Amino acid sequence: MKRTALYYFFMVTALGLGIFFILRAGNQLPAPALQLSTQSSSQITPHLTGAGDYSFSAAVESSLRDNANDPLTRLFLQLFVVTSVSYLVGWIFTRFGQPAVVGEMMAGVLLGPSVFGLLAPAAFQFVFATSSLGALRLLSQIGVCLFMFTVGMEMDAAELRRKAHTAVVVSHASIIAPYFLGVLLALFLYGRLAQPGASFTGFALFMGISMSVTAFPVLLRILQDRAILRTSLGRTAAACAAVGDVTAWGVLAFVVAIARATSVGAVTLSLGLVLIFVALMLFVIKANLPSWIGQPALERPNPSKAVLAVVFGIVLASAVSTQLIGSRALFGAFLAGIVMPTAGGFRDKLVVRVENLSSVLLLPVFFAFSGLRTQIGLLNGAQDWLICLLIIAVATAGKLGGSALAARLTGMKWRESLQLGALMNTRGLMELIALNIGYDMGILSQRIFTMLVIMALVTTVMTGPLLTFFERKQRTPAA
Amino acid sequence: MKRTALYYFFMVTALGLGIFFILRAGNQLPAPALQLSTQSSSQITPHLTGAGDYSFSAAVESSLRDNANDPLTRLFLQLFVVTSVSYLVGWIFTRFGQPAVVGEMMAGVLLGPSVFGLLAPAAFQFVFATSSLGALRLLSQIGVCLFMFTVGMEMDAAELRRKAHTAVVVSHASIIAPYFLGVLLALFLYGRLAQPGASFTGFALFMGISMSVTAFPVLLRILQDRAILRTSLGRTAAACAAVGDVTAWGVLAFVVAIARATSVGAVTLSLGLVLIFVALMLFVIKANLPSWIGQPALERPNPSKAVLAVVFGIVLASAVSTQLIGSRALFGAFLAGIVMPTAGGFRDKLVVRVENLSSVLLLPVFFAFSGLRTQIGLLNGAQDWLICLLIIAVATAGKLGGSALAARLTGMKWRESLQLGALMNTRGLMELIALNIGYDMGILSQRIFTMLVIMALVTTVMTGPLLTFFERKQRTPAA
Repeated sequence: MKRTALYYFFMVTALGLGIFFILRAGNQLPAPALQLSTQSSSQITPHLTGAGDYSFSAAVESSLRDNANDPLTRLFLQLFVVTSVSYLVGWIFTRFGQPAVVGEMMAGVLLGPSVFGLLAPAAFQFVFATSSLGALRLLSQIGVCLFMFTVGMEMDAAELRRKAHTAVVVSHASIIAPYFLGVLLALFLYGRLAQPGASFTGFALFMGISMSVTAFPVLLRILQDRAILRTSLGRTAAACAAVGDVTAWGVLAFVVAIARATSVGAVTLSLGLVLIFVALMLFVIKANLPSWIGQPALERPNPSKAVLAVVFGIVLASAVSTQLIGSRALFGAFLAGIVMPTAGGFRDKLVVRVENLSSVLLLPVFFAFSGLRTQIGLLNGAQDWLICLLIIAVATAGKLGGSALAARLTGMKWRESLQLGALMNTRGLMELIALNIGYDMGILSQRIFTMLVIMALVTTVMTGPLLTFFERKQRTPAA
Repeated sequence: MKRTALYYFFMVTALGLGIFFILRAGNQLPAPALQLSTQSSSQITPHLTGAGDYSFSAAVESSLRDNANDPLTRLFLQLFVVTSVSYLVGWIFTRFGQPAVVGEMMAGVLLGPSVFGLLAPAAFQFVFATSSLGALRLLSQIGVCLFMFTVGMEMDAAELRRKAHTAVVVSHASIIAPYFLGVLLALFLYGRLAQPGASFTGFALFMGISMSVTAFPVLLRILQDRAILRTSLGRTAAACAAVGDVTAWGVLAFVVAIARATSVGAVTLSLGLVLIFVALMLFVIKANLPSWIGQPALERPNPSKAVLAVVFGIVLASAVSTQLIGSRALFGAFLAGIVMPTAGGFRDKLVVRVENLSSVLLLPVFFAFSGLRTQIGLLNGAQDWLICLLIIAVATAGKLGGSALAARLTGMKWRESLQLGALMNTRGLMELIALNIGYDMGILSQRIFTMLVIMALVTTVMTGPLLTFFERKQRTPAA
């Protein structure tokens, strides 16, 4: 013991001194060749430009500024601000009986130019400087892709088939009715609110989509929170929303293909490619994937790295393919989720490994990114706010009314039908995804984007209270 | 049933036709205002510039090119190429009894200019166009931070304290001996291989670091593969590597602070801040975090989103803080891992949620990014290759020799000491992290970077065979 301590002391001292003396000697060495290249030397000693009037505090300040401007620092700072605000606001909303996702959407708006940018412009510019948004945007898109992958995995084909009867009718009604109203509304709004250069077809199709989206994941969360997921109403609602989701994403992919293509030939080509790709995924990949991975690998409690590499490979390849054929990466990720094997609880194991990181770290980034595009200040005057109200009314009438009516026609009771309608009116995150696509494609102007974000927030917030309202009406006569 | 089908048919037909006619009518509408803004209209119809000589195939081609140039497509394509090659090469290496990580490091080199860029320059330029590397770089840094967070979580303070006696002596010997040799080597290499503008102190300190790093995670993997993790040798090796890791990252943080600062005052300030930050993390956060999160939350099998948000918040805040005080985000992430509560298997739950995504998707990106900087073509002539050999010899002599000697002095048998030395000589991923920091800071030139990458690969590949060699020697006399 003592001997060891002695050895240790001797070794550290001797070698430490050796290092010290070598450093002293080495600093007398001529500097490395190519010293003439001023570019690379200025790159290394950026603080020494004003060496003449050098001061300690100035050096500290400039070093701090440099550190803060490093892209990684900026990105981490953005992530920190976004996740903490998102979590806090989400928590506050759950105190008021709202699902956390509503608060997270709201956090995005609060972090955007509408609130943060208005109250503290300098801090806003510092955190979300325009030049630093590229990485944030890619991260938000990765987050949406991972999220859509998990949504796809939550689609259970077997369960859907059992519920197909009611589900297909109600969910298609709950899409086509608000779609029709949205297209009708477009006639009135096109001239004043479409992005200059957008065609009427593109604008109208996007207005239709934005009226008819249902947020399947938010719906599931509400059903869980109210403990009605296993009731008849809950099951029907979940099945309707699932069918509705698949349909809506199909329609959206179709709309994107139409709106992006520049000629009839290109539309046909793009749609044809999309169909071929979907068929390939559903009939070739989905059928063969379980045997490619192998039953034992599917059943292992911890999927091996090899299996995870295959899974991520499929997600990435599918996302890249959809991008290349003129659609959007998120459709590819969604499809990849749908084709994942269900055997051995494999999907659950993947969800645990993907969902936490994406929903805690990356989805808030997506909300924040949507919030950066939402500029409530753009709605000035009573007229804009009236239009916003009109949009909310039309969206609710089409979605709630359409699905309630269809549910009643398939034989459900009026009150259950209205509850189902209220559930289908939840737009949440899915709406934001669709809106961002429309904005990115230069179809929606920032003003209509803002109005539709407000509509998405209001209809999502509405769901809980409406549901309680219809529930009470149901109970009052029975009491 | 029949009535439902009828309703359905009627509804879809009527509303579908309605939508069709509205679209027809709407296309006669005047286009939205502000049509004059040519900038935004050209943004939307980029394919129509040459509308005169329009041809179908040209449109398809230009549309495909546009799709491929979208930053998201590019990033996903890069991720796909990187993860699949990394997985494949990793798999091939495991066939030869090497840990997969060696193959993954090799995959990075293969994807860089040394092989992929040499064999298929056009494809290389397409996939890894310089302008598209910003996002890949940030992702690789995020991957390293998440990885360091999990490494930090694998440090078990209680276990370390039990092994402290041997571990501290051996691991410090296995750092200071190669460190000394590295600094000595720097005397000889500074003039020809340092990045122009780098000081001798910075270069020598980095040469020292690159000689003395041990890859704790790779070591653990090797010990597991050989089923010697639970033997006395395995425990000692793991403890030595863990202590060595903490020491090496501490030294590296110190070196970074010295190399970045521009005056003695700034060095002192930066080091002081780093020390204050470390003390804050270890004594305030580590001590209080379990009570902040609460015992029940720590013991839940699935940590709530709130808890995960707190965890990621700490990782991000710690990473941002270390960046701001002039160190590197990855130290902050490592520290955040160290302060995570151990109770209730909490760390394991976090590791499952973070490690898969980071090790399958993001670490290969880091390897690829290192590979992009490794240009074997830069080593021309026998002299460069001799220097490279010399570096490998010095690294092995310092690391293997130093730790074996120290282990022998603390009372282990010669053969076990040599095996321990062989294990400590594994450099793997950790070496690449240190090298990239040195490169980013403008201290290592691309040539020495390449040589050190080769050294890291060779010493990591060596570990398995050397271990087997010393094992056999051990058995022969006994037989």
